[in-house]
Amino acid sequence: MLSISNRGHLMPPSPIRKLVPFAEAAKKRGIKVHHLNIGQPDIETPPQILAAVRNSNFKILEYSHSAGNESYRKKLADYYSRVGIYVTAEQIIVTTGGSEAIIFAMMACMDAGDEVIIPEPFYANYNAFAIEAGVIVRPITASIENGFALPPMVELEKAITSRTKAILICSPNNPTGYLYSKEEMELLKQIIVKHKLFLFSDEAYREFCYEGTHTSAMHLKGADDNVIIMDTISKRYSACGGRIGALVTKNQEVLNAVLKFAQARLSPPGFAQILAEAAVDLPANYFDATKAEYKKRRDILIQRLNAIPGVFCPNPGGAFYAVAKLPVPDAELFCQWLLESFNYNGQTLMLAPASGFYSTLGLGKQEVRLAYVLNTDDINAAMDCLENALETYNQ
Amino acid sequence: MLSISNRGHLMPPSPIRKLVPFAEAAKKRGIKVHHLNIGQPDIETPPQILAAVRNSNFKILEYSHSAGNESYRKKLADYYSRVGIYVTAEQIIVTTGGSEAIIFAMMACMDAGDEVIIPEPFYANYNAFAIEAGVIVRPITASIENGFALPPMVELEKAITSRTKAILICSPNNPTGYLYSKEEMELLKQIIVKHKLFLFSDEAYREFCYEGTHTSAMHLKGADDNVIIMDTISKRYSACGGRIGALVTKNQEVLNAVLKFAQARLSPPGFAQILAEAAVDLPANYFDATKAEYKKRRDILIQRLNAIPGVFCPNPGGAFYAVAKLPVPDAELFCQWLLESFNYNGQTLMLAPASGFYSTLGLGKQEVRLAYVLNTDDINAAMDCLENALETYNQ
Repeated sequence: MLSISNRGHLMPPSPIRKLVPFAEAAKKRGIKVHHLNIGQPDIETPPQILAAVRNSNFKILEYSHSAGNESYRKKLADYYSRVGIYVTAEQIIVTTGGSEAIIFAMMACMDAGDEVIIPEPFYANYNAFAIEAGVIVRPITASIENGFALPPMVELEKAITSRTKAILICSPNNPTGYLYSKEEMELLKQIIVKHKLFLFSDEAYREFCYEGTHTSAMHLKGADDNVIIMDTISKRYSACGGRIGALVTKNQEVLNAVLKFAQARLSPPGFAQILAEAAVDLPANYFDATKAEYKKRRDILIQRLNAIPGVFCPNPGGAFYAVAKLPVPDAELFCQWLLESFNYNGQTLMLAPASGFYSTLGLGKQEVRLAYVLNTDDINAAMDCLENALETYNQ
Repeated sequence: MLSISNRGHLMPPSPIRKLVPFAEAAKKRGIKVHHLNIGQPDIETPPQILAAVRNSNFKILEYSHSAGNESYRKKLADYYSRVGIYVTAEQIIVTTGGSEAIIFAMMACMDAGDEVIIPEPFYANYNAFAIEAGVIVRPITASIENGFALPPMVELEKAITSRTKAILICSPNNPTGYLYSKEEMELLKQIIVKHKLFLFSDEAYREFCYEGTHTSAMHLKGADDNVIIMDTISKRYSACGGRIGALVTKNQEVLNAVLKFAQARLSPPGFAQILAEAAVDLPANYFDATKAEYKKRRDILIQRLNAIPGVFCPNPGGAFYAVAKLPVPDAELFCQWLLESFNYNGQTLMLAPASGFYSTLGLGKQEVRLAYVLNTDDINAAMDCLENALETYNQ
């Protein structure tokens, strides 16, 4: 029968995409739209790593090794050692973006019907990858009142069934910006060791920590076989379009299986591997300026948000996102209204309704995600809009 | 339980990979190995398309549209119109290599347990993608005696069950080089229309036809909703490492579903989209030289093969592969012996045992795949080796 698959039906559309036509229509009406809805950094890609690609002089754009160029994997092992992650080049498989590392981890470790526990709200595409892999997501809810901290151990253990194979975390978190403490990571370790579970650790935002330091899942002692890191250069070097990520684990059986998935798709992108290799040689202080810039933006954003009557936004420890609770009954309708019916001095803002980041139906209805990927002037202008909009909307 | 998935176990390792350590050992012993085993063309990537990337001047390597840059998709529609395929930019989704087009087609059109019919021998990674998607491959066998022509309609119809959703073809074919005639394509159309099946058409080698012309699945009239083309720039422009392909269909429901899979992985590689866009502007005669070169190689290879006593190789109409039957009981053992125990004037050759390209166990045991991606001198030297080797092996 000529019809698409059930999973084709089930695949969630991007939670932001629905609002795009409204943003486009607003722009056509001459309104300036401040995009706080997407995680595309405005920070420039370091010119020296773009130059590495532009100055390359190979003559044939050949397949690379399926696990990625060996020269790049060796350098990447150096990079990891600088953040206290001690792995060899053989324990790294270069992937096509962090996205592919996630799908490889699910495919290699889980069968259809197996369950993965994920604290919600979470990166919406985890749902999409789970549908591709036939894997069932069991959410445990982190609450905005607790600043999106790890839910209590007892909640976590209640969610474990005979089909549970893994816990998936992202720290610092997209969408909340929450940074797991060393203590929370140790609690997670106890659970994965006790219940023999994999820990899939999405560390895309490792470099962006503003309160305290980053605890990698690879810093946990005695859980080498449990931990799989899913990484990407996208945010680290403002190189989202390159599509270079990595899956890192010390579990040899997992490495062997993932390599077969990697071989099937032949190789990760060639040009961007050159860029990524050059990135490892960036000066040690490269992140300082970027981090300082993001921290400044975060401070303004959070201060401005919490100064608006009825708005609550916990202070995120890392990444460049925050989830705020708004004094509106339905944030999605409000976001649409912002684009369709509102402007303040010819400006408005686009936000991501947070319900798309929850797996439990009905949660996050009053919440929005804000990405602080704009300069501070634009953030201030966007907050002026939001302040004024909420006043008008609630009149 | 901390163990990999069943599909992780089931994923087939690359059929060529097993022999790699033997090739490496031979090289360490100082023996020159002629690589006829892999489809990595030695033809240079057109310098002007590499220059398009090297002369680019953007400052942020941003995510592209999930379906690929609009400017590229528009150009690609032009390219397709030049080969008689009339589609709009909206009917094209740019993928990360042809590999991703295959997995997207399977994921969007088929559920776990659904069946796809594939004439064997076939590209080994179809098996891998089927395992990822939980899809069952039903092979129908094309025989070397018939030059690997499409098996009779009656065989095809016998393979159709209530779970059959698609037929997957590749023309010109990897591994056989067989080019389906217009008549064979029309027969396929009758079947897909009659049984309401998708036709997944892998047209990676469209430009490489030496006998007759290419009939695209999109040339078939009255099957617009059935046909999904899976394409790639890898072979067309010797740009395998770029990882740019495309899924093309006029079926709007399929396009909507595939777009959701594309959105989940964010975007195809950025640099290589620039290269691919520039490739559409290559002079019309670009393929002439490449095609003439491959045809010359094919002619020498096939003539030399069939001149060896006991060897039979049908003349392939396209691509740059051939499958030959050798006078040996087990081609895999022979291939290993070539690397491990043989040399002729300090040279030997590496071939791909064809059993890895069959889904039916036990088939293709005497066959090997040869990729004519070497210059004619090297092909002649490799054939000298093969001739001598078979004489020695069968003494």
